[in-house]
Amino acid sequence: MLALTSHSFALLSPLVPSTSHRSPSPIPTSTRTSSARASMERSRPHFPFLPPAHRALMFNLLATVDDRLDSALLPCAVPPDVLSFQNPQGSAHGSVHIRSGSQSSPVDFVLQSWLHCKTPSGSEINIATLFAFLNSSTDAPHFLFELIQGSPTSLVLLIDLLPRKDLVLHPDYLDEFYQSTNLDGPRRELEQLPQISPYRSSSLFIRSVLSPTAIAITVDCGKEGPANAIEDIIAGQICSAAEKIVGIWLEKCAGAGERVVGDGEKEGLEGRDVLIKRNAVEIDLAANLPRMFVPDVAERVVGELRKAFGV
Amino acid sequence: MLALTSHSFALLSPLVPSTSHRSPSPIPTSTRTSSARASMERSRPHFPFLPPAHRALMFNLLATVDDRLDSALLPCAVPPDVLSFQNPQGSAHGSVHIRSGSQSSPVDFVLQSWLHCKTPSGSEINIATLFAFLNSSTDAPHFLFELIQGSPTSLVLLIDLLPRKDLVLHPDYLDEFYQSTNLDGPRRELEQLPQISPYRSSSLFIRSVLSPTAIAITVDCGKEGPANAIEDIIAGQICSAAEKIVGIWLEKCAGAGERVVGDGEKEGLEGRDVLIKRNAVEIDLAANLPRMFVPDVAERVVGELRKAFGV
Repeated sequence: MLALTSHSFALLSPLVPSTSHRSPSPIPTSTRTSSARASMERSRPHFPFLPPAHRALMFNLLATVDDRLDSALLPCAVPPDVLSFQNPQGSAHGSVHIRSGSQSSPVDFVLQSWLHCKTPSGSEINIATLFAFLNSSTDAPHFLFELIQGSPTSLVLLIDLLPRKDLVLHPDYLDEFYQSTNLDGPRRELEQLPQISPYRSSSLFIRSVLSPTAIAITVDCGKEGPANAIEDIIAGQICSAAEKIVGIWLEKCAGAGERVVGDGEKEGLEGRDVLIKRNAVEIDLAANLPRMFVPDVAERVVGELRKAFGV
Repeated sequence: MLALTSHSFALLSPLVPSTSHRSPSPIPTSTRTSSARASMERSRPHFPFLPPAHRALMFNLLATVDDRLDSALLPCAVPPDVLSFQNPQGSAHGSVHIRSGSQSSPVDFVLQSWLHCKTPSGSEINIATLFAFLNSSTDAPHFLFELIQGSPTSLVLLIDLLPRKDLVLHPDYLDEFYQSTNLDGPRRELEQLPQISPYRSSSLFIRSVLSPTAIAITVDCGKEGPANAIEDIIAGQICSAAEKIVGIWLEKCAGAGERVVGDGEKEGLEGRDVLIKRNAVEIDLAANLPRMFVPDVAERVVGELRKAFGV
């Protein structure tokens, strides 16, 4: 949901003609393996417009988070017209799903969203986001995943554990969450692919929010390559990197009580988090959503996000 | 002097046969334009082993800094055997020149260094560094320039204004020094060259120290290209980027009294700076210099740096 990719639209490569419209396809059978996943299929909105590999990746990622955190999260309280919304022309569709953490949990909220829009030229933009924020009972990093597909052959990908502290002042924190977990490994592997180049947000604030091991890349398979080259990279290397990183986050960050945070420190963490959340809402969403949806839809969605973010 | 490029040696591309040994060439006449430059020629050690474009770039950069800061700097107090040193075999040469800031100046010190070594296989490594650190009377960024040429056709380049604060917590600081100065422009221009790819230090601490507009690149002209391709890039695009960035630093950062720092804040700035300086000395220099020079030479040089850095 553009959570941290300010100006995502402006930065997408000039839109090329879209592939022919895909029929909504069923959830991949490989994702239907556990009771949490089965329950997720009932409770979460399916997003029929997302390309299949994109959709399977998101579904698996969400299932992994739900499998581990389900009991720490409250049911989604987002109203149906935010769980699923569209513009009057039917050319833009979106879905925002938010589960807040229960009182004893270190999780602030888990937000998932999908946006799909067809531009007047017929091309498609698909954006999928998973953003898991922790509260100030811990100083462990937040989790961010965002995949922005702006053409059938190119996309921008962000995966990161967002630091909660100045890493120069806290080398022990850097070591615990980034060095000893080998978080740089998945980034290095992805960047070895010839289709991949670094992506830099035009917002310096967003670059500052990211960690030194952030995956922030553009994948460009070119118009001449095999038609499904980008789907193969999503289903292969991107899926593998995302699973490793969300696994590290669930293991090292989202478990309660690992790191004790004093009352004085809580205030500092909350202040820093508010700056990140406010940036995501004010600059990204409030600026971009009205371009895709009519103002009252955009306001409704932004309103729900403000509520969840507490800003 | 490897100030911020931990593991520089390990990261250099496997060494390729060096070009034939160049005769020491005179300082380029284009650099002999002001009295500060003329005085510099007398006071600073010339480094005859640096390739000509590399050397002219460093000389111009130092002249620009000296032109503006000369009166704010004390004379160099480094002993002659640190101003110029070598290993017993004569295959490695080095020079460290440090001028501390005068009492009323916001400059802590300006360090310039050159290292040259010829490996047993006959290839050459040349490292040139300019590191200008400010004291805690200001919170403006430090300046870093480092060029590491590990083969006749490839090099690693770092140019940055190092932030003194957590940029997420201080968006006004980010705006003042990085956004409104368009510091990202020179980086973008350089990265458009086909020979250039991003460079990532293997040290996550060093990546954390750099700003979101840091130039951190590898230039690789390939063994098949024109013999002087890399010299042309140094003399052209790299020189242009370095001049723009040092100009911004001199204009916005190195002038005294622009930003008032309270006593409470001074301590925080000093603590953060010490972590950066200690990392540069302990991890980079103390680990790498003994590989090039005999222990007593390395210890002497590191000792002078510790004195200048106050760590």
